[in-house]
Amino acid sequence: MSEQFERLSRLPLRDDLRGKHPYGAPQLDVPILLNVNENTYGVPDDVRQAIVEAVSREVVGLNRYPDREFTELRTNLARYLGHGLTPENLWAANGSNEVLQHLLQAFGGPGRSAIGFPPTYSMYPLLASSTGTRYIAGRGNEKFDLNAEDAAREVRQSGANLVFLCSPNNPSGSALGLDVVEAVYEASEDAQAIVIVDEAYAEFAHSGTVSALSLLAGRERLVVSRTMSKAFAMAGTRLGYLASAPEVADALRLVRLPYHLSAITQAAANAALTHSDLLLANVENIKVQRDRIVAGLLQLGLTPVPSDANFVLFGGLDDPHRIWQGLLDGGVLIRDVGIPGHLRVTAGTETETTVFLETLGALLERAVS
Amino acid sequence: MSEQFERLSRLPLRDDLRGKHPYGAPQLDVPILLNVNENTYGVPDDVRQAIVEAVSREVVGLNRYPDREFTELRTNLARYLGHGLTPENLWAANGSNEVLQHLLQAFGGPGRSAIGFPPTYSMYPLLASSTGTRYIAGRGNEKFDLNAEDAAREVRQSGANLVFLCSPNNPSGSALGLDVVEAVYEASEDAQAIVIVDEAYAEFAHSGTVSALSLLAGRERLVVSRTMSKAFAMAGTRLGYLASAPEVADALRLVRLPYHLSAITQAAANAALTHSDLLLANVENIKVQRDRIVAGLLQLGLTPVPSDANFVLFGGLDDPHRIWQGLLDGGVLIRDVGIPGHLRVTAGTETETTVFLETLGALLERAVS
Repeated sequence: MSEQFERLSRLPLRDDLRGKHPYGAPQLDVPILLNVNENTYGVPDDVRQAIVEAVSREVVGLNRYPDREFTELRTNLARYLGHGLTPENLWAANGSNEVLQHLLQAFGGPGRSAIGFPPTYSMYPLLASSTGTRYIAGRGNEKFDLNAEDAAREVRQSGANLVFLCSPNNPSGSALGLDVVEAVYEASEDAQAIVIVDEAYAEFAHSGTVSALSLLAGRERLVVSRTMSKAFAMAGTRLGYLASAPEVADALRLVRLPYHLSAITQAAANAALTHSDLLLANVENIKVQRDRIVAGLLQLGLTPVPSDANFVLFGGLDDPHRIWQGLLDGGVLIRDVGIPGHLRVTAGTETETTVFLETLGALLERAVS
Repeated sequence: MSEQFERLSRLPLRDDLRGKHPYGAPQLDVPILLNVNENTYGVPDDVRQAIVEAVSREVVGLNRYPDREFTELRTNLARYLGHGLTPENLWAANGSNEVLQHLLQAFGGPGRSAIGFPPTYSMYPLLASSTGTRYIAGRGNEKFDLNAEDAAREVRQSGANLVFLCSPNNPSGSALGLDVVEAVYEASEDAQAIVIVDEAYAEFAHSGTVSALSLLAGRERLVVSRTMSKAFAMAGTRLGYLASAPEVADALRLVRLPYHLSAITQAAANAALTHSDLLLANVENIKVQRDRIVAGLLQLGLTPVPSDANFVLFGGLDDPHRIWQGLLDGGVLIRDVGIPGHLRVTAGTETETTVFLETLGALLERAVS
């Protein structure tokens, strides 16, 4: 590895990349993978078949460039989201990271800034950096309970051109009240900022949680991003999307690479959306396991953060690395997100949850005894 | 459209994007599409089946993120290219535009510059702009015959951090001699520039044309980019790639979005590469039609540029727009690439070529009579 970095250092790399390491959780071969918030249930048989048939139809014309406007996909996404949205309100890309990159390319860049509220999705500062956008770490979410007053004050004072609100927040799992979104939107009027509510985990929220999609009407600077990687069990497909005023999508047309969504990606996503009821059938099961994890961790004397996502962040650990390694040795991979005394675990199937809780319990007992 | 742009203008768009229009050739519904240099032969049946089977196997695990390192794909690409290349020499992304974007993100950016030799691939300045890289239009290719001396002088004087050499060049079709690549590489030593030879159309070159892949050994700043969109008849798959020293790929790992290549894209490309002999079987037919187009255009009194690609740029037109429209009215879509008196046509099947040449002949006769 050191030889590799020495070779790399001789290349004319951009200065801000020197000494950096590639982003990404370790991809290890472990029986129970609860580290990157995937849907561990897999794609149901009927949907698999529909996807294969859709791809099959598309392969015939694979020598042609795909529909640059992905019109059918935008139509299906609008129908899925509801809220009176039309295809003109939709945009999509290869994962929600690319959707966010498009937003930063269009509205950020040199001389501009973006604000987020750590701890939050760790790609925000990286995406800002890669587009030359200054990243501002807003205060108020240190205890995972960002409120409207703090958020609005930070946004106003920062003068940021883009605002990242993550709800449910990764890695803490907590959903924001819509009052936070409304207050931030108002507070960003002077700077005319683009306010992004990242709802990658929205489908897992407790019933009664209202999506920021309900706030879109009349707010042309508001953007709600989503993904098919989590609730839809399609992480391998790489399909992220957003809903916004049509002019935001028009702005993104200026920065997207031509034909950025392959014909196969479009076909697979369309097939999945046509069967969204089947794909989302496991969401309730996952929510049950998520709540079971919270209860189980409390019983073990730990401090889980209330979660509206398919994962739980928990604190109260004296030596998180020992616990992480102990779980890994027991065949369970979870995530150290870099918050002192905390680890994050994905809610999987009932069996996976049981193994996680029992292995963790044994590790904690050993520490006490 | 004007209402749309008025709405857009009220958004806090980056200044350099204001008034711009999205890039891309018109996507029109016309019987004969010879405008974007696709392979008009389509994917052979056996390969279609192999792709569907590969995707089918992949759909089972679609709930998981894809292999971030796309190791099998890099292995297959290295095997296809030969020249002693190993998986460590390879990199891939969603189309060669994304490959080039990765290079600009790693080695370009604010305060840095890239040089190209117009007329050349029109995405180079756009990709430079979207990454904050200053684009320099080098001289010497105005008559589509860039030579080593001119290219080296321009590169040395520019001090550019990246050099784009397109061979065979789009839109003129001409392949560069390796002496140009060698001279440019030497001339860029002071600036330690990354020298990119874009060989998107390499498979269509006349026999005896040597790829810049043969120059990679010992040149750690040299990069050869390729695509599966053209000879491989896979434009819909969006798979571009490059070969270089391993440290260049390491640099690109720092700027790629995590999991940028979907599991389905990887599976489809792997299946296609396993059947590259079948996919490339039509390349010879296309070359025959390309040469037939050149001969036919000469007979019509026009001035085609010698081509090593699957398209022909031709001049000698008094009113290119009338010809373009006349061909379109006759069911043949070709491309106006913005060079005065010129148009560009893709070499398709024998039938498509015949219709193109006959329709064009009739249009020219009408002008004379």
